[in-house]
Amino acid sequence: MTPPSNLAYVPFISVENMMRLVHSIGVETVLKELTDAIEHDFTRWPLFDKTPRVGSHSDVGVIELMPTSDGELYGFKYVNGHPTNTKQGLQTVTAFGLLAQVSSGYPVLLSEMTVLTALRTAATSAMATRHLAPKGSKVMAIIGNGAQSEFQALALKAVVGIEEVRLYDIDPSATAKCARNLAKTGLKVVSCRSSQEAMEGAQVVTTCTADKQYATILTDNMIGEGVHINAIGGDCPGKTELHKDILLRSEIFVEYPPQTRIEGEIQQMAKDHPVTELWQVINGEKPGRRSAKQITLFDGVGFAIEDFSALKYVYDRALKTGHFQQLDMIADPDDPRDLFGMLQRAAEPA
Amino acid sequence: MTPPSNLAYVPFISVENMMRLVHSIGVETVLKELTDAIEHDFTRWPLFDKTPRVGSHSDVGVIELMPTSDGELYGFKYVNGHPTNTKQGLQTVTAFGLLAQVSSGYPVLLSEMTVLTALRTAATSAMATRHLAPKGSKVMAIIGNGAQSEFQALALKAVVGIEEVRLYDIDPSATAKCARNLAKTGLKVVSCRSSQEAMEGAQVVTTCTADKQYATILTDNMIGEGVHINAIGGDCPGKTELHKDILLRSEIFVEYPPQTRIEGEIQQMAKDHPVTELWQVINGEKPGRRSAKQITLFDGVGFAIEDFSALKYVYDRALKTGHFQQLDMIADPDDPRDLFGMLQRAAEPA
Repeated sequence: MTPPSNLAYVPFISVENMMRLVHSIGVETVLKELTDAIEHDFTRWPLFDKTPRVGSHSDVGVIELMPTSDGELYGFKYVNGHPTNTKQGLQTVTAFGLLAQVSSGYPVLLSEMTVLTALRTAATSAMATRHLAPKGSKVMAIIGNGAQSEFQALALKAVVGIEEVRLYDIDPSATAKCARNLAKTGLKVVSCRSSQEAMEGAQVVTTCTADKQYATILTDNMIGEGVHINAIGGDCPGKTELHKDILLRSEIFVEYPPQTRIEGEIQQMAKDHPVTELWQVINGEKPGRRSAKQITLFDGVGFAIEDFSALKYVYDRALKTGHFQQLDMIADPDDPRDLFGMLQRAAEPA
Repeated sequence: MTPPSNLAYVPFISVENMMRLVHSIGVETVLKELTDAIEHDFTRWPLFDKTPRVGSHSDVGVIELMPTSDGELYGFKYVNGHPTNTKQGLQTVTAFGLLAQVSSGYPVLLSEMTVLTALRTAATSAMATRHLAPKGSKVMAIIGNGAQSEFQALALKAVVGIEEVRLYDIDPSATAKCARNLAKTGLKVVSCRSSQEAMEGAQVVTTCTADKQYATILTDNMIGEGVHINAIGGDCPGKTELHKDILLRSEIFVEYPPQTRIEGEIQQMAKDHPVTELWQVINGEKPGRRSAKQITLFDGVGFAIEDFSALKYVYDRALKTGHFQQLDMIADPDDPRDLFGMLQRAAEPA
């Protein structure tokens, strides 16, 4: 069997290589650079091919494909969401992604995206917070202290200068885990016994719970004037986190309205409830926060362009640092019409 | 860095392992077993989650995602189609695919699918031919002698007992390549100088050309009574192979009408032009060939269920034969809520 040519190989970033890559740069630097990379792609938003994700729903969860393209590169992410997985010791969300050349259709990168999605979700919240939170915000509350919580805390520290995080989860052991992980990060960490307590003095709140159901993590009385909310956990049909009254008092910012109206907090609202597209705020086309008293809400569900930006970011870094391996994934016969000949010759002794 | 747990690994079939797997079983046996595997899934067609493929089109080609699920397993294929790729020494079509558990969303197999798609496309034609061609067909014509041609010949030999293949391609070197590859397969191979000559005495014809444009590979006068046609090459919007008059004389069988009306030969016809779904013929719900004189046409565009069947088939065989490797693709922290802790610990010296 003759060895395959270079074209047959696709660089692959395993979980282990992703973690090495992140540490070789530094977690906070990665979060900062990712925020900038996503923001850069949001400024060229109209360029991208946009379709709502393609979901396959079952009783216990969802498997989704999220494709997009900027005309040069094509990317997609495979991601599942199975809230009951944790009971079997499995991740609620696992993911991997791919980049390919539009001009040839050949894949150029396959990557784990469980760790990368956690990073890009936090970076997207940081981007929204940078544009929408009150200037000089120093205190944030995190309601839901699961797998996403520490990433949210570090991204907001790195990007907007958050100094104190106030944690609450219905499961105190989740809060203890989050507090332990954040202990040496330079953040002041306060563990709280209620959402209300966590909200005390917070200018920013991130909700990132994982139950697949309509839940009311925050009620109207908890949200004071001027607060910015990142609602991250409500991200599929039938799953929301905020009481409707909060939405009615907030100016709502979203990634891609056709997707958010199905999956986000605003699935509770009328189909024409006014929302602002975040990319237009970043572009300067629309105002973001207009007063110190306004409540701003980023109804984040995660969009394909964010994954695209994240894949492009790690692609460049992995090739430079060597934190990848080569996968023999593409059949590449010498004569492209001779796929069968390649198969036939593979049977011959070398 | 502690080694990842077993759940973190996804079996991967590289191109090299796919070829080893195929030869360990035998190409014709694989084609026969694949035909049976696809036919089995066609009999339980209503069970499957069906969506038309999600395409990203550019001037030079298309990248598609083709997902489906039978409620237990979820599968999707990534596939591109770039007709001008051959000019740069690249494959027109490359592909890979994935199987995952619906219950957890965890991937269980990643596989190359360039070789596998060639096999399943031929197996699908063989399945259609088994149900639609005149009984005792011995002679087939293959118009278009590119990467798919030899697979078509061998599948029809293995499944319906074809003894003679008559080859034609506008490029004689493609015909020479195909004839050479089929030389020791036990088939009588006849190279022809025109489509008309290739059609002489053929009960079955497969068209598998690759140009992305409306082309007329076969005209009405070439098709005599009783012939069965597998039209395989016209498989995207703007790409057809047969003259409309042939379609008007034929009983047309398709995989999934919403997709075939966009991508198949019948994009030339009215939106309500009658077609029969192949799975209903296989199930016995609808008649297939009704007379010796009838022209039957399988307007094949390739459907996600065929890829699903093919992935399931190689999944079972690969695990048994060991023709796979393990990819560290899924982040699997001991505590599923502690993704950040896993990342943090990866930075510590082992």
